[in-house]
Amino acid sequence: MPAFNLIALDADDTLWHNETLYRKSRDEFVRLLGDAASEQTIVDTLDATEGRNLELFGFGIKAYTLSLIETAVELTGGKISGAEIQHIIELARGLLNSPVELLDGVRETLPLLAAGYRLMLLTKGDLLDQERKLSHSGLAEYFSEVEIISRKDQASYARVLRRYSISPDRFMMVGNSLRSDVLPVLALGGSGVFIPFEIVWLHEQAETPPADARGFYELKRFSELPALLATLSS
Amino acid sequence: MPAFNLIALDADDTLWHNETLYRKSRDEFVRLLGDAASEQTIVDTLDATEGRNLELFGFGIKAYTLSLIETAVELTGGKISGAEIQHIIELARGLLNSPVELLDGVRETLPLLAAGYRLMLLTKGDLLDQERKLSHSGLAEYFSEVEIISRKDQASYARVLRRYSISPDRFMMVGNSLRSDVLPVLALGGSGVFIPFEIVWLHEQAETPPADARGFYELKRFSELPALLATLSS
Repeated sequence: MPAFNLIALDADDTLWHNETLYRKSRDEFVRLLGDAASEQTIVDTLDATEGRNLELFGFGIKAYTLSLIETAVELTGGKISGAEIQHIIELARGLLNSPVELLDGVRETLPLLAAGYRLMLLTKGDLLDQERKLSHSGLAEYFSEVEIISRKDQASYARVLRRYSISPDRFMMVGNSLRSDVLPVLALGGSGVFIPFEIVWLHEQAETPPADARGFYELKRFSELPALLATLSS
Repeated sequence: MPAFNLIALDADDTLWHNETLYRKSRDEFVRLLGDAASEQTIVDTLDATEGRNLELFGFGIKAYTLSLIETAVELTGGKISGAEIQHIIELARGLLNSPVELLDGVRETLPLLAAGYRLMLLTKGDLLDQERKLSHSGLAEYFSEVEIISRKDQASYARVLRRYSISPDRFMMVGNSLRSDVLPVLALGGSGVFIPFEIVWLHEQAETPPADARGFYELKRFSELPALLATLSS
């Protein structure tokens, strides 16, 4: 019997590249502000601005862009030019228009998962942006459900499970963020698979659970998922 | 027998004030740019910028703010100051923090509807912002379902109906936008109730269907809904 009634997969940096794109745009932002402050000051100020704005602006490219603009105003003492502001908005447009680049093994592995399990794409961020990425990824056909939510905490996972009448012990979440994808699901009694990505956004960092924590699994690659599921089925 | 298995209600300008807040922030924006252009030019340029950005940025306050900033850069020929840009971002913060002000009759009417029907809140816009408004509205308890979607066209309504296994002829949508709330639902064979609000956003304008169009109803006030539903039940 399959061990789970529903397997939910995170999207950004689990199925496709995301932080890589943000880093590129941040590098360009650092170049743009290079005369106003050091790289470290720019990055630290941006991190602080994003942290402060998270509650009100939420996740996603538009929130990030507003934080970039606020950071630029702050670090230039208001001397940022209109052309530079427009340049920052073009960074956002570039991010929103970026082609979707799948992580290694995702294309080959998803059909194997979808053959045995009901799959959900479960992600946060801009609604429109995530829908566009799913549609451009070529992966939409493997997901019977798509949920784009504003935050991934215990309460929001509980809501999703209630909505689909899934018991936590029959639910597995897979993603690259311990804080968003794994810990709240373990707390509910579900299973969480952590597949680290090379870069972790500051606001997603968290402590790794003990290796023997109930329901916790860590994989190096997405392509190792089917083998893990095979060991968990009976 | 109740005439519908699911009644979906739009949120902005159907349950609570929205355009009123946008208009206030736009008036402040016009004052801010008053030296650069006439009110009419500012409004027209903003409308054009929003229209151009809709496809990529979507709906909601963050998208609106980015359009405000682009408009300001354009109309000042890049001479907008950092302090003015920050002022525009504070307009966004003000919008996001605005208290939710219910429209007349909503508070009294919703419990009556919820007593007889399964209700869904069905809206577009920023995910986080709409969730916050629902939570602050005090109305959340009346909705058994909440769907925040990126656009309201025929395909997205069809997706919602499939998801809840609702046949179109057992579905009613209520809202203040002919284009988003009524026409796509009528096209699917559902019922659409149009309750005009005093202001219509340019990008929501559409032709009124003929008064005898199948499933089309127009009401003056939200409080008239229970009486309409009573005439439709058998």
